[in-house]
Amino acid sequence: MKKLTVDLGDRSYPILIGEGIIQREQLYRKYIAHRHYLIVTNRTLYDLYQDDLLAMAKGEHEWILVLEDGEQYKNRESLFAILTRLLELEANRKSLLVAFGGGVIGDLVGFAASIYQRGIDFIQIPTSLLAQVDSSVGGKTAINHELGKNMIGSFYQPQAVLIDPTLLKTLPKREYISGLAEVVKYGFIQDYEYLTWLVEHVDSILSLDYETVGELIYRSCAAKSHIVHLDEEESGIRATLNLGHTFGHAIERAYGYQGILHGEAVAIGINMAAELSLKLGYLTEEEREYVSDVLRRFQLPLRSERYFPTNELLATMRLDKKNMDGDIRFVLFESIGKALIRGGVDEALIKMAIETGM
Amino acid sequence: MKKLTVDLGDRSYPILIGEGIIQREQLYRKYIAHRHYLIVTNRTLYDLYQDDLLAMAKGEHEWILVLEDGEQYKNRESLFAILTRLLELEANRKSLLVAFGGGVIGDLVGFAASIYQRGIDFIQIPTSLLAQVDSSVGGKTAINHELGKNMIGSFYQPQAVLIDPTLLKTLPKREYISGLAEVVKYGFIQDYEYLTWLVEHVDSILSLDYETVGELIYRSCAAKSHIVHLDEEESGIRATLNLGHTFGHAIERAYGYQGILHGEAVAIGINMAAELSLKLGYLTEEEREYVSDVLRRFQLPLRSERYFPTNELLATMRLDKKNMDGDIRFVLFESIGKALIRGGVDEALIKMAIETGM
Repeated sequence: MKKLTVDLGDRSYPILIGEGIIQREQLYRKYIAHRHYLIVTNRTLYDLYQDDLLAMAKGEHEWILVLEDGEQYKNRESLFAILTRLLELEANRKSLLVAFGGGVIGDLVGFAASIYQRGIDFIQIPTSLLAQVDSSVGGKTAINHELGKNMIGSFYQPQAVLIDPTLLKTLPKREYISGLAEVVKYGFIQDYEYLTWLVEHVDSILSLDYETVGELIYRSCAAKSHIVHLDEEESGIRATLNLGHTFGHAIERAYGYQGILHGEAVAIGINMAAELSLKLGYLTEEEREYVSDVLRRFQLPLRSERYFPTNELLATMRLDKKNMDGDIRFVLFESIGKALIRGGVDEALIKMAIETGM
Repeated sequence: MKKLTVDLGDRSYPILIGEGIIQREQLYRKYIAHRHYLIVTNRTLYDLYQDDLLAMAKGEHEWILVLEDGEQYKNRESLFAILTRLLELEANRKSLLVAFGGGVIGDLVGFAASIYQRGIDFIQIPTSLLAQVDSSVGGKTAINHELGKNMIGSFYQPQAVLIDPTLLKTLPKREYISGLAEVVKYGFIQDYEYLTWLVEHVDSILSLDYETVGELIYRSCAAKSHIVHLDEEESGIRATLNLGHTFGHAIERAYGYQGILHGEAVAIGINMAAELSLKLGYLTEEEREYVSDVLRRFQLPLRSERYFPTNELLATMRLDKKNMDGDIRFVLFESIGKALIRGGVDEALIKMAIETGM
């Protein structure tokens, strides 16, 4: 069992990483004892882990809320389904929510916890690689709106994050690979040494060797929690975590959040960011090629399978939360292992960057 | 112009109280300059103050969102109407919301501000007495749910509260009177001297003498902000502000939030709380009668116009956010001018208290 602490003063919380967490009652019991709780998951996970979840819910079916599976359900209807169930259970301010799922469930449950009776506790049990290395840590919660991804949400920290790498064995391979985009991102933006470690271990990572993957989760969570500790509400350095995301969100939205995974869109976006960094003179041709090469080794996509007009993606990007007055602020490579943020980029260069991934 | 500061560290903000604020651009301009903003109001107020609002919006009709008027519109549809308009206007994290209205508009706009792109600035221009003396100060935001009032919301502080007593001239008399319930409440829970000042000035207050009412607003906001300063997230003393509200919320819900005003329900609730305080031996017969007498002098109701079964109200009260495990926690009179909070009250006594107001 590995343990990390996300250091946020009186909102600090532990991340526990270990095999078999959800079968070990003594590990999670302390968080849920002596209060009402509601476990939220999705249909796919419920079918896989029904016995464990029912054990966790002490056999009470109504303490488990099963939502439909998919990014398109990260919406206001799912949010209000959680809030309504809490009210039906007569949950109070001492009640607890448990998020058992990937990024969609984690974001939904965290947001619901932050607004139910003006805030109740919640814990995260992330089941996807993306959630285990990224979205379960840091307190960003959100739902999507028809006019933009993650446009409605809050900053709200969980009481604990319990991460079990063995849950990844039931994750579809495509989703697992997709999660690796956020992992290599940590190397790209701030840790060249971690990046080379990842590349060296690409085979054990792709074959889901639990020891290597446990180490990968630990190092990724450590990177994320360090940045969150420095900048909880994203007024500065935290924004570098959005490498590839400005492009990526526009691509996801163009897809209507269906047919592409978040990490895939981020990988394509990272490649676009590398291209833009080349065009702006930050990266050499060789470094820019190294970025593509790393993405390729982890079987991540460099280009969108569907074509969308450059102007459509550009218009979406202008709506991004990081922008001021329509000037898009990009997270770019200052070098491999170092990110920088800048606006005022010439529109023609942005379009050229987009076109490398279309 | 009177000025108060709500002291909450880096979330501190000013309350400005003065006649004619919304016509004095130099007073509000500093809060809205150099950014996009959206003014949210209701149909009734828009018809009354269209010219002032359009001046504030520099003639841009789309910067004003007009919602329907009434507590029944403090719901998820209105919330998402605000969020959607912000997205349509391509508002970003630097944008601002302006709440021009009573408690419903203030609660809705504050909540929308707290969750749009994980939090943007907002200012309050309260137009009802209830909002001017209570709901605009303190950072509680919320919407109602079919299963309970204010069940979904956040703690989120505005950048400023601008209070103009002359706006009250267009407030229906019934709503003005209703707001006085929250005013006398401050006297009842913590300030006997303020209570006697109010009773002495009852005639100028009821005739809306601006100087007296300006003083009343100032003293009420000072009382509220002092309590909020001590206990922002209601872990202790702030709960005393809920005198009459546990009963009152149950009554409002029984009415379906129509046909009774919040302050009227609170007044009936205060009278029930006085009765319960008598039954529990905290108040003498004479003191209990004094509470009714004060409410009567301010033309506030002591009884519900409609009858509801005691058990129905009791069941709703058990859902109140302040409760633990179904035991209702009451704000009671320890004496006139001093509140206390306690649970474990015998159900028969609660029912007798409810019946005095039915």
